Amino acid sequence: MLLRIDHVGIACRSLDAAIERYTSVLGFAVASRETNAEQGVREAMLAISGLATAGGESYVQLLEPLGDDTPVGRFLARRGEGIHHVGYAVPDVVAALETIGGRGVRLIDKRPRHGSMGASIAFLHPADLGGVLTELVQPRDA
Amino acid sequence: MLLRIDHVGIACRSLDAAIERYTSVLGFAVASRETNAEQGVREAMLAISGLATAGGESYVQLLEPLGDDTPVGRFLARRGEGIHHVGYAVPDVVAALETIGGRGVRLIDKRPRHGSMGASIAFLHPADLGGVLTELVQPRDA
Repeated sequence: MLLRIDHVGIACRSLDAAIERYTSVLGFAVASRETNAEQGVREAMLAISGLATAGGESYVQLLEPLGDDTPVGRFLARRGEGIHHVGYAVPDVVAALETIGGRGVRLIDKRPRHGSMGASIAFLHPADLGGVLTELVQPRDA
Repeated sequence: MLLRIDHVGIACRSLDAAIERYTSVLGFAVASRETNAEQGVREAMLAISGLATAGGESYVQLLEPLGDDTPVGRFLARRGEGIHHVGYAVPDVVAALETIGGRGVRLIDKRPRHGSMGASIAFLHPADLGGVLTELVQPRDA
């Protein structure tokens, strides 16, 4: 049902500083930069290998909150910079939500919404997955 | 230099309960179970797709501490269950350590040590990578 780790989401105070660090130190390549007002973030997707492999690239998603009263803003106030969530690639996010919800996991998003790079995404509740905020990602080309 | 996200490490209080949850709810498949006394953990690697793809599978690594006075035990006491670290696959962990260390990132492990499933691994300091405990993983067959 799930295909692979699509990305790890990392909360940061300065998107520009985090991009500079991850590209210069680990060699990641900026694949996209977006503002997602619905989720209250400015963000960038960094490709880890830098190779445009078909359906197999994995990413680091850097997330800077648009304000203190946003999910990522509250995360930073509570825990500081660090890993915020993990996203798994799925071939069909609607089908995955139905299956996983049917197994008793609470769905933060009952229907998909817009994610990075044209993906359809939905979040699952961390309390039902060992404290891990979990995202399902159907890439645009899936 | 880095190839993909190899795994996300998740700290849990009960390895058995976490395995049950992740296999039954998300459909992951247990690829290995090991005790790593050096790192103070009982752990399991769960394959996300369940397919033995050559060099491309990604994993969730579930970590139960062997005691309170271990890195994962202290993490649980401080932050509770959740994502502990991210591991990236590399073709050559010694070369990657030299390159990344040369860029000013502090190395927790100056030389590789034994990881899950026969991998050679090394950790990088979270303070130099935006609060993210970061692991380099050279798989056994790399």
